[in-house]
Amino acid sequence: MTEHQHLVADLGRKARAAFAVVSQASSAQKAEALRLAAARLRANQQLILDANAADMTAGRERGLSDAMLDRLMIDAPRLESIAAAVEKVSVLEDPVGQVIDRTEQPNGLVMERIRVPLGVIGIVYESRPNVTADAAALGLRSGNAVILRGGSEAISSNKAIHEAMQDGVIAAGLPGDAMQLVQTTDRQAVGAMLKAVEFIDIIIPRGGKSLVARVQEEARVPVLAHLDGICHTYVDQAADQDKAMVIAVNAKMRRTGICGAMETLLIDQDYPAPGPLLRALIDAGCEVRGDDAVMELDPRTVAADAEDWNTEYLAPILSVRMVDGVEEALDHIAVHGSHHTDVIVTEDDAAAQRFIRAADSAIVMHNTSSQFADGGEFGLGAEIGISTGRLHARGPVALEGLTTYKWVVRGTGQVRP
Amino acid sequence: MTEHQHLVADLGRKARAAFAVVSQASSAQKAEALRLAAARLRANQQLILDANAADMTAGRERGLSDAMLDRLMIDAPRLESIAAAVEKVSVLEDPVGQVIDRTEQPNGLVMERIRVPLGVIGIVYESRPNVTADAAALGLRSGNAVILRGGSEAISSNKAIHEAMQDGVIAAGLPGDAMQLVQTTDRQAVGAMLKAVEFIDIIIPRGGKSLVARVQEEARVPVLAHLDGICHTYVDQAADQDKAMVIAVNAKMRRTGICGAMETLLIDQDYPAPGPLLRALIDAGCEVRGDDAVMELDPRTVAADAEDWNTEYLAPILSVRMVDGVEEALDHIAVHGSHHTDVIVTEDDAAAQRFIRAADSAIVMHNTSSQFADGGEFGLGAEIGISTGRLHARGPVALEGLTTYKWVVRGTGQVRP
Repeated sequence: MTEHQHLVADLGRKARAAFAVVSQASSAQKAEALRLAAARLRANQQLILDANAADMTAGRERGLSDAMLDRLMIDAPRLESIAAAVEKVSVLEDPVGQVIDRTEQPNGLVMERIRVPLGVIGIVYESRPNVTADAAALGLRSGNAVILRGGSEAISSNKAIHEAMQDGVIAAGLPGDAMQLVQTTDRQAVGAMLKAVEFIDIIIPRGGKSLVARVQEEARVPVLAHLDGICHTYVDQAADQDKAMVIAVNAKMRRTGICGAMETLLIDQDYPAPGPLLRALIDAGCEVRGDDAVMELDPRTVAADAEDWNTEYLAPILSVRMVDGVEEALDHIAVHGSHHTDVIVTEDDAAAQRFIRAADSAIVMHNTSSQFADGGEFGLGAEIGISTGRLHARGPVALEGLTTYKWVVRGTGQVRP
Repeated sequence: MTEHQHLVADLGRKARAAFAVVSQASSAQKAEALRLAAARLRANQQLILDANAADMTAGRERGLSDAMLDRLMIDAPRLESIAAAVEKVSVLEDPVGQVIDRTEQPNGLVMERIRVPLGVIGIVYESRPNVTADAAALGLRSGNAVILRGGSEAISSNKAIHEAMQDGVIAAGLPGDAMQLVQTTDRQAVGAMLKAVEFIDIIIPRGGKSLVARVQEEARVPVLAHLDGICHTYVDQAADQDKAMVIAVNAKMRRTGICGAMETLLIDQDYPAPGPLLRALIDAGCEVRGDDAVMELDPRTVAADAEDWNTEYLAPILSVRMVDGVEEALDHIAVHGSHHTDVIVTEDDAAAQRFIRAADSAIVMHNTSSQFADGGEFGLGAEIGISTGRLHARGPVALEGLTTYKWVVRGTGQVRP
């Protein structure tokens, strides 16, 4: 075993022991732990801001970009948001113990499926230190043990936040090892986590595409993640023109850097007003890269090349293609989509139904903006991430996605004939 | 790419194309396909029996054991059972399209989670050729495409069964590629399947421990399986003595070779009648391997060594240990169990509740026999396997376990503020 495998095995054993306790804790006790954790975050404000200042100084010396420094920075209002988010998780409905279904067999055996926590969850993330608090809170609320591995640039902030949270958990009488932070910034520690199938039940990467790609490539532990959010909006011939315009501009331009932002617009060739739709986008500051038919509609459009259809711009750039109805739109999405969020705009219920059934996406939307792809907007109260995988949990993942179930069979002495 | 990677890529592409069709097929159409498949199995009786005779001859020449030859053998009644099982799957409730839950947000967006098929399922199995028909039927009923890889000893039988089934599917107007059989018996083809993350969504191994261990070790594709069924029965001090005896004998001796058979009996040291319990087991033909306290109870008991507590005998052998109440029983199961099925026998509701909550097993039972660990007995109509993993599906897996869900969001033009 390498040094890093030893480290992960040690964290994993402690996490498993803590899991045996937190998985059995009552909702009230877990909620109390999170309230106390939030209180400690507030009480430790100066410690946390000082630690963050050290990270900021080191980050400037290492030449981090302004965008990265902004993601790293914590001030008093941001710390208050972090603490408030932890409190918000403390009042979310606890999925543990919920009865999913119940049947009684003719022999009198009663079968129930009951939600139980998932186990030990590894979270691997980058610069934003608030993930430390968010992930620890969601993990604990759902009765799991988490092993947190943040980016090296935020190590001091993460340690300070983690220590405050852990103090709260211990004060509530629960094991501090239910939330552990990997204290080393060595990248090989991540490699060891990704292969620790004995100790970690699932890995959730939070961060940029290169981080997620590395995790998906190397991991032997199951991964819950999305690599790309190449989200499409298909404007059908029967779309309401006002809705189409408002939805397209919002889906692309509200925030261009989030995974639910539209990256490709597919316009039905029979849609009567493609020109105004493009104009609205370009007037809003969007660069439009189109196929030949699109380029004829507006002189400000530039030519799309083959790679544009596979690109997540995360920027005010949009690829636009004219298609022959809902079937060609579905074909395009099947080839170029990333199974994240795809949208149809139409007043034709049959077309909507066909699109909803056939689009193989974690989230399929009708007459609304793909920017709603977010656990909070879905009423889940929070999210640990969005999954484009097919197994276990799909789309926005919150507390329920961090659980599994067990079968409970109750008898009165029955034996199998 | 190796020859085998090419083969799997080709099967995978065809499966994905077929999936696009069968995932959209109606319940009625899928049921009709399975009825026709069953009819073809019956119509092709002579072809299938001849193919099986060839496998049997080759198996005898290769020196297969009598037990293996019996598993391989198909006669007219067995073929009728295979066809009847396919018909039975055809009438199971189709999970596809079921609405799991539905919420309406304050902004009027309606979110539904709807069950959809999983995708392309690889089934890797050993000698029993009936798995070809079972797995193909369960896969199709739930709208998936399957790639079947049976054992080399059954290749002719598998081809004949597969051809009959596929003919039925095609006759119902569905793509034959929804159920493909790997035609080569080269073991490297399995290796290529296990790594084909681009083409296969999940692998389900059906067979002995060495097959499952190989699949779990090598696979990059997610695996749904159980490696061991080290099932425990804990007889509490408050157990009803008649129930304890009947349950223990059934759990061990009804069929010793199935994964739900009890392998370890834990007896509370305060249970008043351990002697008669052991006597009943030994009188039923069971070899008892016990700890010191157990050995004092019956002279026919032999000493258990450390490995016995980790052994799935699949034979009329049982390890027996005296424990200090439910907590020590749970500790033993946490260390030696395989997360399959564990049972408490007690009339004390508090002890039962503690055991049910704390045992981290896919199936936890109270006052009944672990031999009930079977999808059919659970009312699922069939099973593709039993999973001891924590993710996606746990315990007996049938049609619902072969589905995932998508989020459907219905709006009327809402955009995100």
